[in-house]
Amino acid sequence: MKAAIFCGPRDVQPGERRDPAIEQPTDAIVRVVLACVCGSDLWYYRGESPHAQGSIGHEFIGIVEELGTEVPNLDKSDFVVAPFLFSDGTCANCRAGWPSQCLNGGGFGRGDNDGGQGELVRVPFAGSTLVRVPGTGHSDETMRSLMALSDVMGTGHHAAVSAGVGPGMTVAVVGDGAVGLSAILASHRLGASRIIALSRNPARQAVARRFGATDIIAERGDDAIHIVREMTDGLGADAALECVGTGESMTTAFGIARAGSIVGAIGAPHGVEVPIERVIFGNIGLRGGVAPVRNYLPALIDDVLNDRINPGLVFDLETNLDGIAEAYAAMDERRAIKSLIRVSAA
Amino acid sequence: MKAAIFCGPRDVQPGERRDPAIEQPTDAIVRVVLACVCGSDLWYYRGESPHAQGSIGHEFIGIVEELGTEVPNLDKSDFVVAPFLFSDGTCANCRAGWPSQCLNGGGFGRGDNDGGQGELVRVPFAGSTLVRVPGTGHSDETMRSLMALSDVMGTGHHAAVSAGVGPGMTVAVVGDGAVGLSAILASHRLGASRIIALSRNPARQAVARRFGATDIIAERGDDAIHIVREMTDGLGADAALECVGTGESMTTAFGIARAGSIVGAIGAPHGVEVPIERVIFGNIGLRGGVAPVRNYLPALIDDVLNDRINPGLVFDLETNLDGIAEAYAAMDERRAIKSLIRVSAA
Repeated sequence: MKAAIFCGPRDVQPGERRDPAIEQPTDAIVRVVLACVCGSDLWYYRGESPHAQGSIGHEFIGIVEELGTEVPNLDKSDFVVAPFLFSDGTCANCRAGWPSQCLNGGGFGRGDNDGGQGELVRVPFAGSTLVRVPGTGHSDETMRSLMALSDVMGTGHHAAVSAGVGPGMTVAVVGDGAVGLSAILASHRLGASRIIALSRNPARQAVARRFGATDIIAERGDDAIHIVREMTDGLGADAALECVGTGESMTTAFGIARAGSIVGAIGAPHGVEVPIERVIFGNIGLRGGVAPVRNYLPALIDDVLNDRINPGLVFDLETNLDGIAEAYAAMDERRAIKSLIRVSAA
Repeated sequence: MKAAIFCGPRDVQPGERRDPAIEQPTDAIVRVVLACVCGSDLWYYRGESPHAQGSIGHEFIGIVEELGTEVPNLDKSDFVVAPFLFSDGTCANCRAGWPSQCLNGGGFGRGDNDGGQGELVRVPFAGSTLVRVPGTGHSDETMRSLMALSDVMGTGHHAAVSAGVGPGMTVAVVGDGAVGLSAILASHRLGASRIIALSRNPARQAVARRFGATDIIAERGDDAIHIVREMTDGLGADAALECVGTGESMTTAFGIARAGSIVGAIGAPHGVEVPIERVIFGNIGLRGGVAPVRNYLPALIDDVLNDRINPGLVFDLETNLDGIAEAYAAMDERRAIKSLIRVSAA
């Protein structure tokens, strides 16, 4: 089969991999319809995090082609959304509500196992991982939004849930990548009445507005903190969402957060120092992490199918597996918010 | 009046201060019956945090002697517990449930204003700060337990509440100071079924047991983490309470905490680095900070008066204002868990 191959930093190319086969009775084989490139893939692309040579990509939606003998809840030809991690659904952490901490789980596209950026994926624990999408003949817009649920929308949602976003709240979102934009949409969906987006990029500002941002500020760091405090009677935001993962973004999020609030953080950390004085003397909590997307999928799929959310607007570049290098390069150079990969027909 | 005077590191002495008078209509003057020394006072005593010369001490219970013209809820001769911070009850942060973040509030005993370790205290915003204790003629045991509510018990409770401690949970408590011990009692009160205390001091272990600790481990650091993980099927504790404020204690708390759990932290931070990788890749949250004791007082007072909790067991040294130097020295040298100061008759 054709698949994107990570050959090293700044070198992701179309290549060939052996077709996957059922290995465990709990496996399924999914034919990928849409895939995409994640902001976290860029850490590997830029050489800032290690990645094994081979398969890459952890976001995909597609059609169930084969099923092991022990895959409840699924049938051949089902159209499914894959969360970016597989999980057994039965371990202590899964039972406690944390499939993203599954004791037997893992991620797609880590060099040896199949990646989302390829034609076929063997999905372990398919019955507890994949979520069937009801209905047929979904529009391309719907398909794009379903694709966004595999990671970015669920992850942005996790930032908002972790920070306790609820009706009437003022939320500030640090980061205008696809996850930051999704966090805006998630906050809007959860009832936030004011959503302040930190962004200086016109294309991203436009999506932020469409997702529900009420205010956009282009400043960063201390200037951003100062402005958000001025906008909130000196108090700060009721919730701050950290959607980047750098030291500056974390410091900004804590500076923007109101006393007693929670910073919802989902950025993979690179050089992050948590301002513990703000935690203790400001009673500002820190929650978040690797999103338990599997938990969130049923409700988010329902919202997409009923046109209540349109997270697919984050995709502003389209290509196929042959164009995978450009998909990465455009995101790396911030020419694209997020690259969609059309792999096969639905 | 007589009062403890902070003269410099390792130099707290009995001295004289001018009797306080009503300055604002919202003030009250309280005659102190019992006071005590806080673990956080030791940071000043040891010269590790700065402290102005003059008054010191932020924990006291006593009798209302004088009232300004605008003090609702209180009468002269009322017996009251003071939380360690005063708060106006009306600012945006107080209204949001965070009196410990009151925009117009402050602390007792910061050099110039009256401290709890003295005969009289002017209490700003007395109506929204002090909590009346119903009944009269309380036993000495009850009085000691009411004294513990001013800070340590409320602070230990805040650690447990912040970490989401609830019925049936396994809780690990890092720190066997008075607050750590109080956190054990608070966890027990909140229904934790297993409480693992980290302590190597026999006197503290004994109090930990009386407060509800089911397991005690003497190891620290990586050894403690290893043992707690072994005790919990490799998962870690459902909640970890950080009651020290050092880098090692925070690292231990995060190492002990189960994926998806929350570290409840109340220690004043000194050299603390939050292990952000555990936050993000372990989905382990961090909440806590300066305890909103005022919120917790009514329920805790009720529990003390009805003999459901006995937090006064943390006091294992008694003296009066003339013995203030020994009260500090004994805690500094870990000869005492917490020093009680008898200031006047009830």
